[in-house]
Amino acid sequence: MSDYLEDLKKELSANPIKVLDDGFVRLVDFMGSDEAVVQAARVSYGKGTKQVSEDRGLIRYLLRNDHTTPFEMCEIKLHIRVPMDCWRQWIRHRTANVNEYSTRYSLAIDAAQQTDPGKWRTQAKDNKQGSGGFFPEETGSRLTRAEGELQNHCRSVYNERIELGVSREQARKDLPLSTYTEAYWKIDLHNLLRFLRLRMDDHAQYEIRQYAKAIGYEIVSRWVPLTWAAFLDYQVNCMKLSDTEIKLLVLIYAGKEEECLELMKEAEWLRIKDGEQKPGREAREFSEKLTKLGIPKLWSF
Amino acid sequence: MSDYLEDLKKELSANPIKVLDDGFVRLVDFMGSDEAVVQAARVSYGKGTKQVSEDRGLIRYLLRNDHTTPFEMCEIKLHIRVPMDCWRQWIRHRTANVNEYSTRYSLAIDAAQQTDPGKWRTQAKDNKQGSGGFFPEETGSRLTRAEGELQNHCRSVYNERIELGVSREQARKDLPLSTYTEAYWKIDLHNLLRFLRLRMDDHAQYEIRQYAKAIGYEIVSRWVPLTWAAFLDYQVNCMKLSDTEIKLLVLIYAGKEEECLELMKEAEWLRIKDGEQKPGREAREFSEKLTKLGIPKLWSF
Amino acid sequence: MSDYLEDLKKELSANPIKVLDDGFVRLVDFMGSDEAVVQAARVSYGKGTKQVSEDRGLIRYLLRNDHTTPFEMCEIKLHIRVPMDCWRQWIRHRTANVNEYSTRYSLAIDAAQQTDPGKWRTQAKDNKQGSGGFFPEETGSRLTRAEGELQNHCRSVYNERIELGVSREQARKDLPLSTYTEAYWKIDLHNLLRFLRLRMDDHAQYEIRQYAKAIGYEIVSRWVPLTWAAFLDYQVNCMKLSDTEIKLLVLIYAGKEEECLELMKEAEWLRIKDGEQKPGREAREFSEKLTKLGIPKLWSF
Amino acid sequence: MSDYLEDLKKELSANPIKVLDDGFVRLVDFMGSDEAVVQAARVSYGKGTKQVSEDRGLIRYLLRNDHTTPFEMCEIKLHIRVPMDCWRQWIRHRTANVNEYSTRYSLAIDAAQQTDPGKWRTQAKDNKQGSGGFFPEETGSRLTRAEGELQNHCRSVYNERIELGVSREQARKDLPLSTYTEAYWKIDLHNLLRFLRLRMDDHAQYEIRQYAKAIGYEIVSRWVPLTWAAFLDYQVNCMKLSDTEIKLLVLIYAGKEEECLELMKEAEWLRIKDGEQKPGREAREFSEKLTKLGIPKLWSF
Repeated sequence: MSDYLEDLKKELSANPIKVLDDGFVRLVDFMGSDEAVVQAARVSYGKGTKQVSEDRGLIRYLLRNDHTTPFEMCEIKLHIRVPMDCWRQWIRHRTANVNEYSTRYSLAIDAAQQTDPGKWRTQAKDNKQGSGGFFPEETGSRLTRAEGELQNHCRSVYNERIELGVSREQARKDLPLSTYTEAYWKIDLHNLLRFLRLRMDDHAQYEIRQYAKAIGYEIVSRWVPLTWAAFLDYQVNCMKLSDTEIKLLVLIYAGKEEECLELMKEAEWLRIKDGEQKPGREAREFSEKLTKLGIPKLWSF
Repeated sequence: MSDYLEDLKKELSANPIKVLDDGFVRLVDFMGSDEAVVQAARVSYGKGTKQVSEDRGLIRYLLRNDHTTPFEMCEIKLHIRVPMDCWRQWIRHRTANVNEYSTRYSLAIDAAQQTDPGKWRTQAKDNKQGSGGFFPEETGSRLTRAEGELQNHCRSVYNERIELGVSREQARKDLPLSTYTEAYWKIDLHNLLRFLRLRMDDHAQYEIRQYAKAIGYEIVSRWVPLTWAAFLDYQVNCMKLSDTEIKLLVLIYAGKEEECLELMKEAEWLRIKDGEQKPGREAREFSEKLTKLGIPKLWSF
Repeated sequence: MSDYLEDLKKELSANPIKVLDDGFVRLVDFMGSDEAVVQAARVSYGKGTKQVSEDRGLIRYLLRNDHTTPFEMCEIKLHIRVPMDCWRQWIRHRTANVNEYSTRYSLAIDAAQQTDPGKWRTQAKDNKQGSGGFFPEETGSRLTRAEGELQNHCRSVYNERIELGVSREQARKDLPLSTYTEAYWKIDLHNLLRFLRLRMDDHAQYEIRQYAKAIGYEIVSRWVPLTWAAFLDYQVNCMKLSDTEIKLLVLIYAGKEEECLELMKEAEWLRIKDGEQKPGREAREFSEKLTKLGIPKLWSF
Repeated sequence: MSDYLEDLKKELSANPIKVLDDGFVRLVDFMGSDEAVVQAARVSYGKGTKQVSEDRGLIRYLLRNDHTTPFEMCEIKLHIRVPMDCWRQWIRHRTANVNEYSTRYSLAIDAAQQTDPGKWRTQAKDNKQGSGGFFPEETGSRLTRAEGELQNHCRSVYNERIELGVSREQARKDLPLSTYTEAYWKIDLHNLLRFLRLRMDDHAQYEIRQYAKAIGYEIVSRWVPLTWAAFLDYQVNCMKLSDTEIKLLVLIYAGKEEECLELMKEAEWLRIKDGEQKPGREAREFSEKLTKLGIPKLWSF
């Protein structure tokens, strides 16, 4: 392994990255690097063929064209400390190896994730599964106080059970989801990038987003910098246009307003509500894309 | 599909099997049957070859010899209702398809698993991750009362948050692990048998064992009766002997006491404690196997 | 199951779809349908919440937003007959269940894929792993004749070995990759769509593309029509724009030619060759996208 | 990483292990070791608990009791060169990462596995998918000569196609299965052990067995010596007794001949053939186990 990687491994395993109030992400080990991606891809081309391109170009080519197997040749192992609620989402990514702290075998970790008064979030209006803005400090303080009392209550019930001799596997049954757990989590780079793409996204819950960003920006970006840059370009900051959206763009550029509306109707993008035509969800999403592309709409809604 | 299977599917999907105080397992759908296992195995043999044996014999042969792929040709989908604590163990089986009830999107299910006064378990003495016997009713009543108060407290904090307008994804953070969740769980027969073997076992936690037994004895046994019988014979009620244990059995049958002890020492099965030779864990496990086989030990510990 | 699905299953399992000269794809069984996707997605929303939208809208929403788990709730089992060369690519999709015809156990299938004189393809010039146009009939006839002689030679060596009593597992060692094999192949709908997206693509080899299209257009399109339509719209006939491409589109629309060239240089899209600036692969790919979008380039190369 | 592991990695990556006539297995990289298994297992026990036992004991305990996740924490990457026929079996192990040499992109490797005159195997009598003894040298010479001619024919047809300009993806279609391919193969230790258990077994085909043994005895045994020893003891040189076999052993030890026969009949282990009672396959397998355990049968067949 290069000196750079050797040093990076030492640095990152000695310095856990703090996440939330009492969580962390810490590198345990990695195998491979940008170079291993390239090396694996070149197995395909054989010794006889000339070098396809330099490393950067090859990595970008692979990522752009959905060649996933070379990225599977890198592996990373992390030690994480995370609230159980967040872990419930994390564990849904199945292509990973996991060893979690056992509350059957050992006493539950004596820490629960606490919410700062300024960090309580309102229910999003337009998104049934998201958060909106923050509560005012005053309400927040009340919520934080109630949270603290509840977490204390949970912990004291847990402790009483343990002291009485209740089995650990049963005593834990009413621990709050905010209780921290720890795990070793090992995954290949291709599947890690998939995890990061989904969990760094604005639609992911705030808490797991903090973990994903810590892993992405503070570990992966330094471990495999070429892959990381390509990932941001092609998979994170990218835009996907559907068949209908492509057709609409063509019509917009040609200035064909009527045909645009016709096509949107056909695609069932417009809904009649109170006698008026309203854009449905896809029409609104397309408007946002147009704004991002700096292209004016031909219609008024 | 045969009438038998058609009727079974109707019966089982209409009648959820109750598990724990408020949980259930319900069949949603299945694909294939014992016949599909046989059919898939026979793809391997081609049309030209004579029938290898009848279905029962073939299924037993396959299961006995670790031929796993034919069992993957059957698929089952279940609807389950289970405490989150139990679900945390369940979800560790990665080769399944899952859709879980979302407490980001919807209000958490208003039910938590409650423990009867007679069902509180003591910590096992000899097994750091298991339970021993039950607590006396009196202590149990105290524990149950405290549990009820805690669950009420948790629920009222949750409800207050929701009423205040806290986002569902954040409001849920202190729900107790005893809260019920629901999921669709789909898995192939091979991986299901693996799940059942591990979770019907005495070492699995009581709660998940109830689910595994309900699935095994009330659904799988009727869905694929030939496979189920072979599974019980070869994988559940079986015994595995290690290389050392095989050698010891030979020595025991030959009456060679000295050599037995010698071999156990070599294998590091005996520990010196307070100047005395004590059997270690493997020696004790072997004793239990001998008892089961009706073979007397040649040694005194 | 609805009558429609019942009838479809009967029809498709009785009528294998021919592929290549002697291959086929045949439905064995399926579980679930568009309705099962919706049903699984709605587990997430709970009984209490109002219906999110009608089935079509929900399925489109799920597919558009990378919600993969509901599509995993459908399962399909196919019986296929395919040349080993093609199967070597097919089997690289790991998330499937497979039972293949065994040439250890049985005699190899006595059929090899033959190439028509008009179907020999030249090596692509611009794509190291693709084909260009067809050879003239005359050359093709010569190639086909040589192919036939070789396949006969292979078969006669195989038959001689078998007659002499060579074990089947060894006798098969020199069978040509064109030899047909058969398999049962079972996969969930999400992973099937991924297979189809990659293998129906123009970059996939001609032979496997025929199988993918047969599965997609003749089976999946009828089994889960709503999912299929959404799949074509969002995943097959779609276009992905990278971060750089988005920025370029903004500049193009604003008419900023200079900035476009500057950005392309920064992104290393242009190469100096023989003193001239040449567009690299990404620049050329972007040009093709612009053509498809009906947007004129601001630059001359 | 320890100096021992560092040196081992250097040695093994510089010295490919030869397999068959022109194949090899070469270490590319590994991550973790026996120590990493222990470290991962101890995540479960928490810092507060005393050390469960020393490393050797813990590893043996884990392997004995089907604790698979700690072994998933080690990862190994190999570079292999293997005939396509053998690779067809290898690739059926799905839980691995693979990059194979591409004969679409590059010219096929100019080497096919050749059989020595003394290495031609007869079809096994008692096992439809195995080999028996060797052919006499004379017949073998004839077979080897015919093999050589065939492989030359295949190669010359391939070369002619390439020279004519046939696309590589099509030119390869009649390559014999004996053609060598190369691949990077990456897998975690748990799944590697599963591969080794199945492919080092006498029932696996000779060719893949040579690869499995090379990996096991020359790489894994030195990389994770404690795990390897436990693996041999518990999973390779072990014996599994079914429910029926356990009951029979009890009866044998108690000298109950009649009951033994009764039980075997119930279990359908005996078949009537030509008016005589014949032991079926399971009865014969049990006899072999008794022989291995040094326990005399109570019956005559």
